[in-house]
Amino acid sequence: MRYFLTGAAGFIGSHLVDRLLAGGHDVVGYDDFSTGQQSFLDMALRNPRFELVRGDVLDDTALCAAMSGCDLVFHLAANADVRFGTENPRKDLEQNTLATFNVLEAMRRNRIRRIAFSSTGSIYGEPEVFPTPERAPFPIQTSLYGASKLACEGLISAYCEGFGFESYIFRFVAILGERYTHGSIVDFVKSLRRDATHLRVLGDGRQRKSYLYVHDCLDAILVAIDKAGDRVNIFNLGTDEYCQVTDSIRWITERLGVKPQLVFTGGERGWIGDSPFIFLDCGRVRSLGWTPGLSIREGVVRTVDYLVQNPWVLDARP
Amino acid sequence: MRYFLTGAAGFIGSHLVDRLLAGGHDVVGYDDFSTGQQSFLDMALRNPRFELVRGDVLDDTALCAAMSGCDLVFHLAANADVRFGTENPRKDLEQNTLATFNVLEAMRRNRIRRIAFSSTGSIYGEPEVFPTPERAPFPIQTSLYGASKLACEGLISAYCEGFGFESYIFRFVAILGERYTHGSIVDFVKSLRRDATHLRVLGDGRQRKSYLYVHDCLDAILVAIDKAGDRVNIFNLGTDEYCQVTDSIRWITERLGVKPQLVFTGGERGWIGDSPFIFLDCGRVRSLGWTPGLSIREGVVRTVDYLVQNPWVLDARP
Repeated sequence: MRYFLTGAAGFIGSHLVDRLLAGGHDVVGYDDFSTGQQSFLDMALRNPRFELVRGDVLDDTALCAAMSGCDLVFHLAANADVRFGTENPRKDLEQNTLATFNVLEAMRRNRIRRIAFSSTGSIYGEPEVFPTPERAPFPIQTSLYGASKLACEGLISAYCEGFGFESYIFRFVAILGERYTHGSIVDFVKSLRRDATHLRVLGDGRQRKSYLYVHDCLDAILVAIDKAGDRVNIFNLGTDEYCQVTDSIRWITERLGVKPQLVFTGGERGWIGDSPFIFLDCGRVRSLGWTPGLSIREGVVRTVDYLVQNPWVLDARP
Repeated sequence: MRYFLTGAAGFIGSHLVDRLLAGGHDVVGYDDFSTGQQSFLDMALRNPRFELVRGDVLDDTALCAAMSGCDLVFHLAANADVRFGTENPRKDLEQNTLATFNVLEAMRRNRIRRIAFSSTGSIYGEPEVFPTPERAPFPIQTSLYGASKLACEGLISAYCEGFGFESYIFRFVAILGERYTHGSIVDFVKSLRRDATHLRVLGDGRQRKSYLYVHDCLDAILVAIDKAGDRVNIFNLGTDEYCQVTDSIRWITERLGVKPQLVFTGGERGWIGDSPFIFLDCGRVRSLGWTPGLSIREGVVRTVDYLVQNPWVLDARP
């Protein structure tokens, strides 16, 4: 098989490149390195079955050319920051919705019909049902990020019906692990490195969140694209637990050996569009035989260890 | 109140302009006349409280300028053809998704916070529950048109959460009545005018569809924006009945006094993305005190009468 990956130099993308190469497949990685890291592909670049194309998913021509001859597209490139949607609403529209349209059109022109897509649990807005199943009541969007991923899912499903595509859509909780470069754990570790006596926490710290270790996430994705047989296959991906923000802070500070005073900004939500409770029902992907290997706590601890060993990550993004 | 309408020269838009003017309001109509008809605004243009701006919703600058000083935006401009999505997928993306983003951004720049939006029952794809309520299980999109309207709904809801907007989202069944210019009734009447002995019917004719008379639709919209008080207010709009395609054909042919032989193209669906059964639960809008005045049959008959009296409509579009 010859796989095409957008966002190949990103956190999840680069791990997936390594896994696919280890499985003996050919891989074409596509990334504009706006947030991706060349160093994540160090191992892949030594493999003759890996081809790296530096390009923008909004560049139709380059994207279409790079995709030629591939069998399945993993579309992982995205603006993955749920927090800053209202600062620049066009970013989610362009980097998520329009980028996904471009990927689908490039696939159509190349007669590639299988796509795997990284969606998000944020798509459920503030759900009424916990754990939230894939067929939860039609949600109301609360973030521009969630809205853009919803638009992508809709496009992908319509291409399945309209053009005979097959799709694997994964609604992730927050993913953790080695090469994790942005999100709350980075923010906390970065802040504690600057000042270990105080830690500013967005919201009241009681938000309940879910996390999944990146290799568990990839196991699930690979099982799903192997075994799922519908035209549109949608899977929640998470563990069967959640934690409070203050739990994750406790695990982080214990691991770092610091005892900061927590300063809460207050309120049920950490930012506009923050969902106070994310907990997904992952029974559907578990029914394919997948189970996560690490608990949330173990995933958080590995992530902290990675960041401590790779402090450059803390400086790599604003 | 000063209202802004995109798609003001369209079927539903022009009726709404007339209704708002009759209610003593100021109205700014915006239309690029790609499908809108100047003649639909004949009455409005004689009213000094009506201002018409010829412009494209994709033209940010013109849109933003035209919207200045308005209190509520009715965003009705759209590519409303569910049937031809796969022929040009970019059309739904641009004229629906991107246009709606532009409308929201123009509102934000003008500090206008209330939007009413024409969505569609097609957003439910092929639902499992009939009549389908607004909180039906998270649907899978089956048409590019539905997918684009889903994207619009998501954007609007996210703007409500992110920027304090209030929205009224209406998921229409097919709307009928005077000034109806495209859709199956036009297609049937046009075809019968050419040849009254045969009528080609897409699918097996047993598709179950819902229709609503345009003035009933507008009554519901005006009641909803007056009474609904949530940040995001979503309403199905339809009658509490449905009919088969062959029922509507019988009513049309009886009214026209013709007896064509029906030629079915076959299959459960008339085209790619056609939903074989559309029947919405409209209990939510009914709970505000609205009821439709005309049955589906009465709406079909009025539409046929309108088309017979205005044969130019049959030639106005391909």
